[in-house]
This record gives sequence, C-alpha cells and structure tokens, in this order.
Amino acid sequence: MSNVYDKAHELGRVLKESDEFKQLVDLHQKVNADEQAKQMLEGFRAIQMELQQKQMQGMDLSEEELQKAQSVFELVQQHELIGKLMEVEQRMSQLIGDINRIIAEPLEELYGLGE
Amino acid sequence: MSNVYDKAHELGRVLKESDEFKQLVDLHQKVNADEQAKQMLEGFRAIQMELQQKQMQGMDLSEEELQKAQSVFELVQQHELIGKLMEVEQRMSQLIGDINRIIAEPLEELYGLGE
Repeated sequence: MSNVYDKAHELGRVLKESDEFKQLVDLHQKVNADEQAKQMLEGFRAIQMELQQKQMQGMDLSEEELQKAQSVFELVQQHELIGKLMEVEQRMSQLIGDINRIIAEPLEELYGLGE
Repeated sequence: MSNVYDKAHELGRVLKESDEFKQLVDLHQKVNADEQAKQMLEGFRAIQMELQQKQMQGMDLSEEELQKAQSVFELVQQHELIGKLMEVEQRMSQLIGDINRIIAEPLEELYGLGE
C-alpha cells in the first residue's frame, strides 16, 4: 500500500523531470510574458470551455459555434508560441492518458472478465 | 520519456500486487460464483449507471429516484459479499484518485500559476 504511494510519487517526479514538462513550463512563461499571446490564449480557452460544458450537458453544438471554434483554433495555432504550447500540451495529455491506461489495465481486465 | 513509461508500468505492477487489488479479485470471483449475489449486484449497477448518466447530462434526479437508489443501496450493502466488495471498491477508487492527484500535481501547479 505505502509501496503504491511511493511509486506514484516516483512517477510524479519522473514526469516533472521529463522534457515535455520542462517545455511546458518554458512555453507557459513565454506566453505569460507576451501580453498579446496571453490574451489570445485566454480568449481561445474561454470559447473551448464554453463548448465543452455544452457538450458535457448533452447539448448539440450549432454549425455556427463549431465554425467559430474552428476559426479561432486556426488563428491561435498560427501564433508561433501558442502553436508550440498546444503541441506540447497535446503530447503531455497523450502521456497522461497512456499512464492512466497502464495503471487501470489490471482493473479493466478484472471488470471486463466480471461481465 | 521512456522513464515515464517504465515508472507507470512499475506502478501498475505494484497496484496489481496490492492487498486491495487481491481482495477485489477474490471478492469478484466469490460474487460471480453466487447467482443471487451476482443478480443483486447487476441490478444495483444498472440503477447506479442510469442515475449517473442523468446527472452527467445535467438532469435533476427526482425525490423518488433518489429514494429508490438509497433503498437498493442499503439492501445490497447488507449482503455480506457485496457489502465487502463495495467497501474494497471504495478503497481502490480512493487509491486511484490519490495516485491521479499525485501525478497531476506538477501540472496543476503550473496551470494554477498560469492564471
């Protein structure tokens, strides 16, 4: 049991020392130091969050909303710093997803067999 | 990076060797071997899932639904095997929650600071 917590802390440390995490910290600092980039990113996050909340509540998104999100996404991606940040965030999110899958594997096997 | 995957696999192994996981496997086998317990548990899971889906869609649960869920919950908990299984599932779910928090800590610090 304490072994599980020890390993989780070890994993947290290794993740914090990973290139992905260091790049994320570096890009965050750069975006925060650039007022225009910061505002652009905040605007995009606000739209993203609004649409995600709608989807989570089972609401359909209108064609207009999807197009607006798509154009804002394309715009922010063209900004060098934000484009890079999003790329690294995507990689980090994949890494966290992989970690969760690896950890949950024995449980999924157990519940898969239980059905 | 490969270090992250190695550590995640180590954590998965330690979790699989934990008392909680072994108890879970044991209780699952026992419940599956007991037709009455198995049906009771399946009935409870079905109600639980139905209510969770409603909540996720932002729907309010009626007083009647809540009372029905509560009485079924009390009933299944009185069953020795199922009561134990639910207790161990609760502990496992807490353990997984703790692990996720430990791993996500550096990211949360980063995004907390970014605001």
